[in-house]
Amino acid sequence: MKTSEKRILVLHGPNLNMLGKREPEVYGSLTLEQLNAELAAQAAKLGVAVECRQSNHEGVLVDMIQTADGEYDCIIINPAAFTHYSIAVRDALAAISTPAIEVHLSNIYRREEFRHHSVTAPVTVGQIAGFGSQGYILALYAAVDIIMRGGKK
Amino acid sequence: MKTSEKRILVLHGPNLNMLGKREPEVYGSLTLEQLNAELAAQAAKLGVAVECRQSNHEGVLVDMIQTADGEYDCIIINPAAFTHYSIAVRDALAAISTPAIEVHLSNIYRREEFRHHSVTAPVTVGQIAGFGSQGYILALYAAVDIIMRGGKK
Amino acid sequence: MKTSEKRILVLHGPNLNMLGKREPEVYGSLTLEQLNAELAAQAAKLGVAVECRQSNHEGVLVDMIQTADGEYDCIIINPAAFTHYSIAVRDALAAISTPAIEVHLSNIYRREEFRHHSVTAPVTVGQIAGFGSQGYILALYAAVDIIMRGGKK
Amino acid sequence: MKTSEKRILVLHGPNLNMLGKREPEVYGSLTLEQLNAELAAQAAKLGVAVECRQSNHEGVLVDMIQTADGEYDCIIINPAAFTHYSIAVRDALAAISTPAIEVHLSNIYRREEFRHHSVTAPVTVGQIAGFGSQGYILALYAAVDIIMRGGKK
Amino acid sequence: MKTSEKRILVLHGPNLNMLGKREPEVYGSLTLEQLNAELAAQAAKLGVAVECRQSNHEGVLVDMIQTADGEYDCIIINPAAFTHYSIAVRDALAAISTPAIEVHLSNIYRREEFRHHSVTAPVTVGQIAGFGSQGYILALYAAVDIIMRGGKK
Amino acid sequence: MKTSEKRILVLHGPNLNMLGKREPEVYGSLTLEQLNAELAAQAAKLGVAVECRQSNHEGVLVDMIQTADGEYDCIIINPAAFTHYSIAVRDALAAISTPAIEVHLSNIYRREEFRHHSVTAPVTVGQIAGFGSQGYILALYAAVDIIMRGGKK
Amino acid sequence: MKTSEKRILVLHGPNLNMLGKREPEVYGSLTLEQLNAELAAQAAKLGVAVECRQSNHEGVLVDMIQTADGEYDCIIINPAAFTHYSIAVRDALAAISTPAIEVHLSNIYRREEFRHHSVTAPVTVGQIAGFGSQGYILALYAAVDIIMRGGKK
Amino acid sequence: MKTSEKRILVLHGPNLNMLGKREPEVYGSLTLEQLNAELAAQAAKLGVAVECRQSNHEGVLVDMIQTADGEYDCIIINPAAFTHYSIAVRDALAAISTPAIEVHLSNIYRREEFRHHSVTAPVTVGQIAGFGSQGYILALYAAVDIIMRGGKK
Amino acid sequence: MKTSEKRILVLHGPNLNMLGKREPEVYGSLTLEQLNAELAAQAAKLGVAVECRQSNHEGVLVDMIQTADGEYDCIIINPAAFTHYSIAVRDALAAISTPAIEVHLSNIYRREEFRHHSVTAPVTVGQIAGFGSQGYILALYAAVDIIMRGGKK
Amino acid sequence: MKTSEKRILVLHGPNLNMLGKREPEVYGSLTLEQLNAELAAQAAKLGVAVECRQSNHEGVLVDMIQTADGEYDCIIINPAAFTHYSIAVRDALAAISTPAIEVHLSNIYRREEFRHHSVTAPVTVGQIAGFGSQGYILALYAAVDIIMRGGKK
Amino acid sequence: MKTSEKRILVLHGPNLNMLGKREPEVYGSLTLEQLNAELAAQAAKLGVAVECRQSNHEGVLVDMIQTADGEYDCIIINPAAFTHYSIAVRDALAAISTPAIEVHLSNIYRREEFRHHSVTAPVTVGQIAGFGSQGYILALYAAVDIIMRGGKK
Amino acid sequence: MKTSEKRILVLHGPNLNMLGKREPEVYGSLTLEQLNAELAAQAAKLGVAVECRQSNHEGVLVDMIQTADGEYDCIIINPAAFTHYSIAVRDALAAISTPAIEVHLSNIYRREEFRHHSVTAPVTVGQIAGFGSQGYILALYAAVDIIMRGGKK
Repeated sequence: MKTSEKRILVLHGPNLNMLGKREPEVYGSLTLEQLNAELAAQAAKLGVAVECRQSNHEGVLVDMIQTADGEYDCIIINPAAFTHYSIAVRDALAAISTPAIEVHLSNIYRREEFRHHSVTAPVTVGQIAGFGSQGYILALYAAVDIIMRGGKK
Repeated sequence: MKTSEKRILVLHGPNLNMLGKREPEVYGSLTLEQLNAELAAQAAKLGVAVECRQSNHEGVLVDMIQTADGEYDCIIINPAAFTHYSIAVRDALAAISTPAIEVHLSNIYRREEFRHHSVTAPVTVGQIAGFGSQGYILALYAAVDIIMRGGKK
Repeated sequence: MKTSEKRILVLHGPNLNMLGKREPEVYGSLTLEQLNAELAAQAAKLGVAVECRQSNHEGVLVDMIQTADGEYDCIIINPAAFTHYSIAVRDALAAISTPAIEVHLSNIYRREEFRHHSVTAPVTVGQIAGFGSQGYILALYAAVDIIMRGGKK
Repeated sequence: MKTSEKRILVLHGPNLNMLGKREPEVYGSLTLEQLNAELAAQAAKLGVAVECRQSNHEGVLVDMIQTADGEYDCIIINPAAFTHYSIAVRDALAAISTPAIEVHLSNIYRREEFRHHSVTAPVTVGQIAGFGSQGYILALYAAVDIIMRGGKK
Repeated sequence: MKTSEKRILVLHGPNLNMLGKREPEVYGSLTLEQLNAELAAQAAKLGVAVECRQSNHEGVLVDMIQTADGEYDCIIINPAAFTHYSIAVRDALAAISTPAIEVHLSNIYRREEFRHHSVTAPVTVGQIAGFGSQGYILALYAAVDIIMRGGKK
Repeated sequence: MKTSEKRILVLHGPNLNMLGKREPEVYGSLTLEQLNAELAAQAAKLGVAVECRQSNHEGVLVDMIQTADGEYDCIIINPAAFTHYSIAVRDALAAISTPAIEVHLSNIYRREEFRHHSVTAPVTVGQIAGFGSQGYILALYAAVDIIMRGGKK
Repeated sequence: MKTSEKRILVLHGPNLNMLGKREPEVYGSLTLEQLNAELAAQAAKLGVAVECRQSNHEGVLVDMIQTADGEYDCIIINPAAFTHYSIAVRDALAAISTPAIEVHLSNIYRREEFRHHSVTAPVTVGQIAGFGSQGYILALYAAVDIIMRGGKK
Repeated sequence: MKTSEKRILVLHGPNLNMLGKREPEVYGSLTLEQLNAELAAQAAKLGVAVECRQSNHEGVLVDMIQTADGEYDCIIINPAAFTHYSIAVRDALAAISTPAIEVHLSNIYRREEFRHHSVTAPVTVGQIAGFGSQGYILALYAAVDIIMRGGKK
Repeated sequence: MKTSEKRILVLHGPNLNMLGKREPEVYGSLTLEQLNAELAAQAAKLGVAVECRQSNHEGVLVDMIQTADGEYDCIIINPAAFTHYSIAVRDALAAISTPAIEVHLSNIYRREEFRHHSVTAPVTVGQIAGFGSQGYILALYAAVDIIMRGGKK
Repeated sequence: MKTSEKRILVLHGPNLNMLGKREPEVYGSLTLEQLNAELAAQAAKLGVAVECRQSNHEGVLVDMIQTADGEYDCIIINPAAFTHYSIAVRDALAAISTPAIEVHLSNIYRREEFRHHSVTAPVTVGQIAGFGSQGYILALYAAVDIIMRGGKK
Repeated sequence: MKTSEKRILVLHGPNLNMLGKREPEVYGSLTLEQLNAELAAQAAKLGVAVECRQSNHEGVLVDMIQTADGEYDCIIINPAAFTHYSIAVRDALAAISTPAIEVHLSNIYRREEFRHHSVTAPVTVGQIAGFGSQGYILALYAAVDIIMRGGKK
Repeated sequence: MKTSEKRILVLHGPNLNMLGKREPEVYGSLTLEQLNAELAAQAAKLGVAVECRQSNHEGVLVDMIQTADGEYDCIIINPAAFTHYSIAVRDALAAISTPAIEVHLSNIYRREEFRHHSVTAPVTVGQIAGFGSQGYILALYAAVDIIMRGGKK
């Protein structure tokens, strides 16, 4: 199989545009632009294409997920705050046939109680949490693996 | 009373634009466009006008509900995922004088635990759930009945 | 399909025999007899037969549901207080092949906390709540629609 | 006011027909017949009439409560096991205009956790618990007092 | 001891009259009549008498339990739906001196959450669940064993 | 037995000194002084003595309960707000041998959720709630009855 | 309206007498005496009189609240630890006609879980929390505003 | 310090654009425009500038909060319905260095249970609730005080 | 079918080695050795072989369950304390094809709250509780019955 | 270090003045005076001074704790009923620099559910429960040990 | 009584073998060997013998507790992590006649929520928590005291 | 840095020795031996050494974790059933300085409720769940990355 024609959509949820600019002691000093560049470089090595987008708007993310169906082979999503209450994002992920992987920069199980529960995880292939920006690279590997096995949800 | 001058607003919440295109075993094969056409045809028979809108954006739905006040005689709303957490949609419905009817395609009491609770139902006249697209037609009958009795919330 | 041979059983649960006689500010002034007459008239227009029964006894309702199997094409039931705790009524509805529709006169989501939960709704086709006696007429339309589509639960 | 024309209905719930015959260390050796005789004697002194009935059937108690409306000036009820779950008995008491008084032989707050909660108490005038059969005599005094003040719920 | 004079009462709760007629994939094809015949045959071999009764009415079961005291040496009861909420059945079983055994056809711990809790089990000798109609035969063995040891609760 | 030498202590908890002066629509227009006078008059008829005290201080009430032991034959207590959280008052009532009766002017089961639970009721003989100032008279009758039966807790 | 004749009662709850002497990193170095002096100075500018009192005794605070009725035009209260469990303080505030304002030095929503809930807030006009001693000055402005609008609760 | 160069951002959440137009008995007759004008006038007196914005869109509020960092010296925010579930708004407030003050027109502790909890309060300096539009003026005083003390969160 | 070649494994969980030696008033005076001998004798009559093992070690029980697969035709297990929390024992029982029966000497529903819940019951054929050592004999009958019907889980 | 100049304050909470006089089967026959004498004798051997006080008043205990700061080197407190709800006592203990040790005569984990939780334990050095009056002696040893290590909380 | 023949078993639960080697800021720098030596020295002074054992294996601790019966006069146990979920350890402690004392190095009520609950405390004589290794010495004093009073559980 | 000297410990919890032999539709047909071989091969390519061990015994895993400290540079652990209740495993992981990564073959958030909660995740660097055996490879990449960044927990 040629993975070179494969496309992966990376979705960053609310407040991730502030990555590297705020609370570096928590999230590191890497900016979202640098993270996206790293993902693009790594994807090139793996022979796939990535497209990265960010939004603070729940509806915009739902729109992006819906239109990803048929356009992308896998979604890597960090729903950020929406992880914990957006049934709308969950329903969008459940409605499409494209598989999704949930990523979190921090170990959400070490943070406030209300961040321990994910409403989106049950409709994704799996979850990677706590490895910082490296978690996105791991998700990229996982995405390629899923695509090579046929890309089933 | 002449119902012919009466106008009903039908609001479809997030992911309902995918109706008939995704998960037909759950939601049937009728598309949102076909459902809206059916509602328009039935409304014509009952001598009222319907206008149908859909949005994946919570804020857009809140705007629509606010501007419906005075413009429409009744609202039929399927808040979809927002049913379960959008206090903003609830507050908008509570703030206007136009009565509203809540509709769900599926029997939400047969689904996941978190779909059993509605934050919007208490500020509507009532709820119709589990009858598929037919539920909208029943809501249309209910809306006409409410309008004929004076349209009180 | 000829609906004229179709028969619908309407079951009223405990205390509904007091309809129109008590608390008219909550339930309206229509008596159960008048409601049943209205249902019969509307059914005649739709070409189906309805039979209406009321009981304050849980076991009697269970008997009625059991014997309805094969005798009726659809059940419209307002389980009243039993809605919230009668697993016996639920089990009876689940045990037969006749489809059922749950109706409530009031919007149960606006009332006491213990009335927000229904143990019977998950084994019915769907629920209609908050439209007063008009809710029964809507259920009648829904029942005819279900019967015309084959009467599956 | 002449109380001599006043009538009080005393309702005993499930298993109270076994009073004095079983578990005398808990409920005393007085039988239900003796208790009813005592109530009748005391009522005669107070110039009112009492009628005492017992049933193990929830529906029968609901029927009795419904038919008490207009026939009796006050109800004294010991719902026994129904106290803790019968919303049907509660709804019946709420639906009529006759005031009711809840009585318990034992101090239910000293017994199993599930006996600490009463679904019927909120729709009665008040509750008397823990004074054995003497509690019924106290309820009789309270009933006469309520009737003399106009008998409002 | 002569067990031939011993009598065992078998009580079947709500909806068990439909055994073998409904949902055979869950409850098997044996009817209640056949189950009762099997129990009678097995009892004859063990030298005891059984009497089997079924009711969908909670109050009727309470009456049967009360009158069993002194008449029967042991009760085998499948309270069905009442298992989970009937404090009235529980109180009746607690009030008499005849020991009781609780039986369930299915493994209630594999079913819906609300069927995992039994309000009646604490006042019986013990519970047998999940062995289909064979569970009644096991209960019969247990009953004879209890009677031979003196029949204490 | 001569009841004329018997003494009953009536304890009124926090804010009851405002009775009749505040919120008459809830608590009636009778002042605490008038209520105490009524209790004294009624006690005189029954041949017992009552002493009435009120305090807004939890520690003062605990002191009074402790010193009542041996001095009084029965305590009638309306712990008011302390009903719901004062384990200190509960422990004092439990530590002495004098029996106590809990009284509430209003039906606490009709009020806010946090007023439905009593930490003191389990250590009293019983509770009388919802009959206004008449509830104290009923408690007086109950106290005399308890004293005549030997005054056991 | 002349505010110069208006009087405001400031009540400080348990442990606030230690203000400025203990845990200055949490509560600042201002002592209660200095805070009261600041309040008096600011009140003088606004043309009203303030009286400040502190007590570690729940009953003393209840007494003060009761006697404030008719004597003061507004109460500013920091119930400190009592905020979270003193239904007696709540009932006292509810029983009088003088409006009250709840103040907290710290942002109680950032502290232990058990400090997130206030039993007194529902019977006050409103709550100001998290602004340190400045919160009392804000409460003073609010009090004057309430008095000028007629002083309704 | 010269406060005249200081700028305060006032953010009004969903449905607040309807202020004064709907439910005046709850929220008063002041419109949002009038409230903003009042705030501007009061700010002018205090020598600071205010800018007021409203949105029904969660994402728009998140954008505004993010861009306020460095542009404004303090944020006064009434998150309205978002108070109770928008972790996205919370995260935005936590990510910036500008201090924020939470304001509510009504006493949220007197309203529905689900309005008693704030997910945003823990990341603000403090909360002011229940003083109507006057609460914004109090927040303005608090903001100036915070700015004068160095503007730390 | 020849049952004589059939083998049943009886597993006793932690502390059961103390049977008959400790707390005879609770568990009787029969020792584990005697119980095992009784099981062997009864098995001989039924033409099957039993092997009995006991361990206080969770891991040892997991090992035994795993190696029982293919070696035994049925498992009778009394997981004792592990019943209530050992997901490891549960997972082992679920992983093998040999059917299992859960036995408890005492009626666990009459004991402490934390003993009412079984994490192992859902993966067994069924549960027998409350019949003392006789419960093992009943389980033996049930095991033979299961084996004769084909031994499916 | 010379411990002879060290002073330890022993605080006994509500109802402990009844020690030895009431419920000796629970609390033993030792009176509070005897316990205090034993503590003084033992303290003399250890070369420290103890002062023992008791109060049924929450506010009095708070006052004593506050004034103990600087006056005493360690506090031994049995908060009795206040253990479970007095946040005021907790806050007082937290506000001072003197370390405290919590003592309970009985094993509170064997008593009613509501006695299993301590609001004061988290602000003490540690807790000793279940050793009767001997627990105070153990606490005395612990106090001397803490003082000798520098007396830090 | 001669205590010199008395033997005390000290049991250290999982991870306590790491004492003094890991996290000294939490648990101090004393190793388990040093602690055991200290206990032995102190025991010698008191004229009793101690034997100290540690295990990370639940089953090994259960074995040790069982075999301690008759061999030791008292058990001092720090169940560490097992405190919070090992019903097996609890049952073993309950089954033997040797009294036990529960010790914790840290104040478990200051740590994570799941460490606030002990399943073993109710079957021990009492609990000592928060005094570091000194807590074991206090337990030793308590053990000797219990043995001298007859060694009852 | 030379990774060739780095060693990674892979720990498989209870029942994982049955991998590939049981329930292949859930866990795939790969055996634990094959998975370990794959990990070794992949590790060789990355220039690190892996050692893989499995145990059904909680205490054995605790021992392994403790002895890994200083011996290994990173732990990859699939605690299986222990994930959900073994505070002993959690405490062991917390006590050592070696960082750990939690892996699950299945998406535990899609399985039974009791598998949604991990007591071990908060003390690991992060969690990878739902990617089958590929999840171990991802964990290997993450481990190497952590080691290269200095191996901090």
